Amino acid sequence: MPSSEWSLHPQLENDTSAVGDLPLCRVLAMNVADYPWLILVPRRPAITEIADLEPADAARLMEEIALASRALKDITRCDKLNIAAIGNVVPQLHVHIVARWKSDPLWPKPVWGASAQRKGNPAASAYFLGEIRDRFGLPLIPSR
Amino acid sequence: MPSSEWSLHPQLENDTSAVGDLPLCRVLAMNVADYPWLILVPRRPAITEIADLEPADAARLMEEIALASRALKDITRCDKLNIAAIGNVVPQLHVHIVARWKSDPLWPKPVWGASAQRKGNPAASAYFLGEIRDRFGLPLIPSR
Repeated sequence: MPSSEWSLHPQLENDTSAVGDLPLCRVLAMNVADYPWLILVPRRPAITEIADLEPADAARLMEEIALASRALKDITRCDKLNIAAIGNVVPQLHVHIVARWKSDPLWPKPVWGASAQRKGNPAASAYFLGEIRDRFGLPLIPSR
Repeated sequence: MPSSEWSLHPQLENDTSAVGDLPLCRVLAMNVADYPWLILVPRRPAITEIADLEPADAARLMEEIALASRALKDITRCDKLNIAAIGNVVPQLHVHIVARWKSDPLWPKPVWGASAQRKGNPAASAYFLGEIRDRFGLPLIPSR
């Protein structure tokens, strides 16, 4: 199926800012204050599980997870990355990559399933978006 | 580094039963009652992040995640798989693959970070181990 049939799930669109597109995935940044947090969404329609991806897409997803992991680690100098594909609420396949510090509010618990996160302030969010776009060399996405 | 330098982290050994070895990963089953739950541990020493793996190992990890996902889904007929590499407590890189149902005790919250899980009873655990080993075609691990 062509990726032109794909569209971003409205809840992901609502909760994030768009960073840009890698060859497979739309890269999003969660609008939260305490955790630099990327989300990779393969631009393939009707996929809910990693195991549903074609093998070439699964391989590419792993490459993009590694790329985004290195970018996030380089920028944040975090202690640990937390990576997950959960999808119990939003079924469209999406992979969280979250920078964690031993000093952060939830450490060592995961961020998923915690009560509502504090929103990031617009200036800090814009700074993070700029940094991560520079690291990827990604342009803005033209049509949102 | 040869995989002979690798050894399983004691906490993972304590919390799980060994299913067997895939080409890259040791496959473990968590001893909990409510969630069929596999853990893949790449047999590579001193790796804490997916992005630390050599590219060929990262590609193989994705193949083994897809293989384990399909095996777990086929056996359990679950509603969703939850997959994560967290490592805030046990630093040795390990990937959780958990079968979830909309009717399970924690749905839609993730299982990680929840309070202590009920232990599986030995007969049910042995049955699950047998099923998952059959599906993978894996032998017992000789030396634990």
